[in-house]
Amino acid sequence: MWQNFKEVKDMAEVKLTFPDGKEKNFPAGTKTIDVAKSISTSLGKNAVAGKLNGQLIDLMAPVSDGKIELITAKDDAGLKVLWNTASLVLGAALHDLFPAMTFGERGLTEHGFYYDTDNAAKPVSIDDLAAINDHLAKMIADKMAITRQVVKKGDALAEFKADPYKTSLLNALPEDAQVVLYRIGDYLDFGEQGVLPDTHLLKVTKLLSVAGAYWQGKSSNKMLQRVYGTAFFTQKQMDADDARRKEAHDRDHRVIGNQLDLFFVDPKVGAGLPYWMPKGATIRRTIERYIIDKEVAHGYQHVYTPVLMNLDTYKTSGHWEHYRDDMFPPMDMGDGEELELRPMNCPSHIQIYNHHIRSYRELPLRLAELGMMHRYEKSGALSGLQRVREMTLNDGHTFVMLDQIKDEFKKILNLMIEVYADFDISDYSFRLSYRDPNNTEKYFDDDDMWNRAQTMLKGAMDELGLKYTEAEGEAAFYGPKLDVQTKTALGNEETLSTIQLDFMLPERFDLKYVGRDGEEHRPVMIHRGLVSTMERFTAYLTEMYKGAFPTWLAPIQAVIIPVKNDLHGDYAREVKRRMAVNGLRVKIDDRNEKMGYKIREAQTQKIPYTLVIGDQEMGHASVSVRHYGEDKAITEDTNMYIDAMIAEVHNYSRTGKLSGTEADVTQQLDNQKN
Amino acid sequence: MWQNFKEVKDMAEVKLTFPDGKEKNFPAGTKTIDVAKSISTSLGKNAVAGKLNGQLIDLMAPVSDGKIELITAKDDAGLKVLWNTASLVLGAALHDLFPAMTFGERGLTEHGFYYDTDNAAKPVSIDDLAAINDHLAKMIADKMAITRQVVKKGDALAEFKADPYKTSLLNALPEDAQVVLYRIGDYLDFGEQGVLPDTHLLKVTKLLSVAGAYWQGKSSNKMLQRVYGTAFFTQKQMDADDARRKEAHDRDHRVIGNQLDLFFVDPKVGAGLPYWMPKGATIRRTIERYIIDKEVAHGYQHVYTPVLMNLDTYKTSGHWEHYRDDMFPPMDMGDGEELELRPMNCPSHIQIYNHHIRSYRELPLRLAELGMMHRYEKSGALSGLQRVREMTLNDGHTFVMLDQIKDEFKKILNLMIEVYADFDISDYSFRLSYRDPNNTEKYFDDDDMWNRAQTMLKGAMDELGLKYTEAEGEAAFYGPKLDVQTKTALGNEETLSTIQLDFMLPERFDLKYVGRDGEEHRPVMIHRGLVSTMERFTAYLTEMYKGAFPTWLAPIQAVIIPVKNDLHGDYAREVKRRMAVNGLRVKIDDRNEKMGYKIREAQTQKIPYTLVIGDQEMGHASVSVRHYGEDKAITEDTNMYIDAMIAEVHNYSRTGKLSGTEADVTQQLDNQKN
Repeated sequence: MWQNFKEVKDMAEVKLTFPDGKEKNFPAGTKTIDVAKSISTSLGKNAVAGKLNGQLIDLMAPVSDGKIELITAKDDAGLKVLWNTASLVLGAALHDLFPAMTFGERGLTEHGFYYDTDNAAKPVSIDDLAAINDHLAKMIADKMAITRQVVKKGDALAEFKADPYKTSLLNALPEDAQVVLYRIGDYLDFGEQGVLPDTHLLKVTKLLSVAGAYWQGKSSNKMLQRVYGTAFFTQKQMDADDARRKEAHDRDHRVIGNQLDLFFVDPKVGAGLPYWMPKGATIRRTIERYIIDKEVAHGYQHVYTPVLMNLDTYKTSGHWEHYRDDMFPPMDMGDGEELELRPMNCPSHIQIYNHHIRSYRELPLRLAELGMMHRYEKSGALSGLQRVREMTLNDGHTFVMLDQIKDEFKKILNLMIEVYADFDISDYSFRLSYRDPNNTEKYFDDDDMWNRAQTMLKGAMDELGLKYTEAEGEAAFYGPKLDVQTKTALGNEETLSTIQLDFMLPERFDLKYVGRDGEEHRPVMIHRGLVSTMERFTAYLTEMYKGAFPTWLAPIQAVIIPVKNDLHGDYAREVKRRMAVNGLRVKIDDRNEKMGYKIREAQTQKIPYTLVIGDQEMGHASVSVRHYGEDKAITEDTNMYIDAMIAEVHNYSRTGKLSGTEADVTQQLDNQKN
Repeated sequence: MWQNFKEVKDMAEVKLTFPDGKEKNFPAGTKTIDVAKSISTSLGKNAVAGKLNGQLIDLMAPVSDGKIELITAKDDAGLKVLWNTASLVLGAALHDLFPAMTFGERGLTEHGFYYDTDNAAKPVSIDDLAAINDHLAKMIADKMAITRQVVKKGDALAEFKADPYKTSLLNALPEDAQVVLYRIGDYLDFGEQGVLPDTHLLKVTKLLSVAGAYWQGKSSNKMLQRVYGTAFFTQKQMDADDARRKEAHDRDHRVIGNQLDLFFVDPKVGAGLPYWMPKGATIRRTIERYIIDKEVAHGYQHVYTPVLMNLDTYKTSGHWEHYRDDMFPPMDMGDGEELELRPMNCPSHIQIYNHHIRSYRELPLRLAELGMMHRYEKSGALSGLQRVREMTLNDGHTFVMLDQIKDEFKKILNLMIEVYADFDISDYSFRLSYRDPNNTEKYFDDDDMWNRAQTMLKGAMDELGLKYTEAEGEAAFYGPKLDVQTKTALGNEETLSTIQLDFMLPERFDLKYVGRDGEEHRPVMIHRGLVSTMERFTAYLTEMYKGAFPTWLAPIQAVIIPVKNDLHGDYAREVKRRMAVNGLRVKIDDRNEKMGYKIREAQTQKIPYTLVIGDQEMGHASVSVRHYGEDKAITEDTNMYIDAMIAEVHNYSRTGKLSGTEADVTQQLDNQKN
């Protein structure tokens, strides 16, 4: 049996400082719970843990000198204590049910807790969840005690010597680490403090799911089974979280992507490297063509540049120095050449700029590309289409004279808002990022340029009458910027668009233009992305539309169901043909299934229009049309229906706004006004 | 001074066999020229070299036992002797003019010869060419003797010890090599035999160009100056070659690409990695959209798949084993993962196929992609857009049941021919490649499958009535194929399209479908590319059209020139606007230049339509239109002109064939018939 290890040195008294600044001495050996009781009886009852010098400390742990804070259910940290405790009790419950099981890492997520498990005989699965939940509930109802003991690392290693995962986790600790052991019945575990002394507060706890997770997040390691759960202090909190979870799940682009067969990622062939299935590819292609046509109409010149570049160029650009950790490993091509998968497209567009001598008459020179890039994201950070390693950015670079910045910035903003209107995006906010005025030496060194540029950006926002926040110290090293922020279905803030001024790259690559005076001058470079990467934007749209893509984006825009294949099949095919030659994406569902089944499936697949064709329709050259999400079908003349659909697609499915872009931009600008 | 080294062992007699099989003995020491004279006086006069056992041998070299052939101006090898001699004399001429110059490699091209030079003080340039040509002509007119001597490698090294390039070339020879030295005046060189004994036959010789070339073709080595020239036996031959060279130059996509600003490649940022300038990018984008729309209309499902894949997958596919030399180096991602830039898209499409359980109802399943790939080409083999290291392939894979091969093959052929018609491609031929019937063990092992498949392909060609050649032993390891062959401007044969059956990958990746019988079966995979890579196809089209792209592909379709900017500018802009909203690519040329200059420039830029707008046109709502290549302008009603241009673009610029595709395919098929 292990020896108890002193948590604190022998001392006569402990001096604690409270959040209000008051100090108080306690006898040595005083526990967190005693401190709570000394303040008030109710705090003694309600405290779930303490925070000593910012670190969570158990109620039953003796305190030492420092700043103390008491944590209750009302604090954010209270929930963390609840989840931490629940994960420990989950271990105990699993240990009861699966005695041979070993355990990997235990931890918290944004919304609950998890425990990684390895049960060689039969890996735990979703089918086991009900039984585990039942056993867990019983242990909680039994109000079991959770006892703690602090030991040296060596003693803990001796306890867990039969368990390779625990041994590995303990070995990673410093040699002089104190390990806190927790015991529930005959189950022994260790981990972070912030554990309740018994299970009675856990009554609103439930397990949610099981998913594969590599040991320590490395794909070369063994795949373990991660059991997820959550817990709250009240049922009302749990109900609210259920609703949040359901909504997040229903909107999650990974879930919808799977339901609608849009894309998949398979770590076995490449983590973070998505495969776009035909339907997802159709959405992406529609977005790509839209954005290119829009940009070309606004004076951008689209180019194609290679995804590979000589490493030396990234040394010149500074990416290799500052950004290397996010870059892929260089490839040695022999002949002394090292090639690098580009992490950004800017140096490529600079090659295009520098291929000719440029005149002031050409400025602003607007180059754009759907540029494929590669960034090394940690495998644990990868997620669906949102966080990937290979991405195609809607990238653009405008080369301007200093006095053109403001106008060009406004033009980009207007274009951005026009694009948002076409996609029906309205939930976003603007953030202007300046350099830190107290720390200017951190930034590219040209005070005058910074001051003029920041003033111009702010002036442009004000002239357009747009609301924005200002963030000092948030600018890039190379210049001020504007970000457009939005939120994902899962509540994460995300940058949808960006406009960044850059004074540095024009210096580093010695960019020039010949001015009106016949002399050489240095242009300013503006990096801008309207809709970020094709991957991230598709994920964003999928969540925003909840998979019900507007007609112009929908991979299948209409499904035609003949009432009887033999009687109405020819007419159905004729209608399809007439739609297809107009570029509409239509399929016929002539499977041997019931009509009602086919209609329901079209709804599940979120297809904008379901057309039923029977005797009536054939006789009147009409179609019976059901719009997605509506219960009733209406009968329409076939030609008129097709014409309306063509117009809808042409008009980006903006009903009642046939007059188009200008009115929309005005509307959007109005929405964003002070 | 070096010692003469015996070319042959002492022997009493030499036994020679002539091409007609006759044998004859000659005294030891007999030279090639003596053998020629022994046959006839005229051969003694006309012989320029011999071939002994297949190797060129100088006229003044003593012969040894073996098969002999005499070379005259009429033989292909005669020209090689002329060029080899000319390159040597070029060295002598350069040595006279630039005494400090050292020399790299000397060699022959398809159309002449070259010598690499290093003149530290002032690298030789195109400006020096006239003076060198003059001096060369003088040496030729002087009928200078070229003497030869055979020495040991060590003696040759001693001669050239001051010259690092020559020393390096000599060191690369085997230790026991005989080196043939040639002397012209005080100039000393060495090299391959096939050198004339004097300069008098070189009278039709000229130098053509100077270009940078890395020492031994490695980009990490010093850049030398390569002087190119050519020579012929008659002026008539030279005139014909001048014409060929002019035509090849005028059609060369690298030349046109530069003139029209379509693309560039810069080895400093990446050899074989093209940058598509806005105009080239417009052509490429038009081709890409065309081919995707065409394939989608023909039942293909377009996807996007990553350019990177786990190396293990290429081990499964066999690419790593058989194709590694052409692949980029793998990247170590940590976590035991190695990623590889794909050299082919097939394994990616297999991932898409295998993502679902497939039913016979889904077959033929047609997947397609504009798939970016990377292949490691030697830097010396790279050429413009034709041979690159990063390329985007118009790739497609059809998964079929065995009995669907023939039908699907016909469908692909019809699609291919439809595409050729749209691009007005008519100069091509079909080649069917079978396995070698005497060597079947070299191929994927399934006799029945091979026999059925080859019979089906041949049957399909016959049923369509197409002419084709058959090539036994030219099939891929994994199945028979059809190639469509064409020629580039420079006369190189090139594969434009391909259809390849593959029995192997379905095995290796365990592809299945559930048949009508409810059992699992193995599909056959068909690889097909209609227009090869975007890079190669654009190069091909550029050369075929000689840069005068048809209107639907032209990056700028029309240029509008107002007679007077202040009077006609508004109307010009209105015409431009009306064209642009219809997707036409138009620019206004309102520079302060003369009208004639602007019109000439529009012709130089090969813009399909030049519109001039003055008082007359404004008054009549008309435009004065000049079609590219025509001298006269005609006046057209503006609306009618715009409508006609829209129709032309829609119809892929096929004049008089407005009814479109079907008639064209029939026509094309007729052209190819037996």
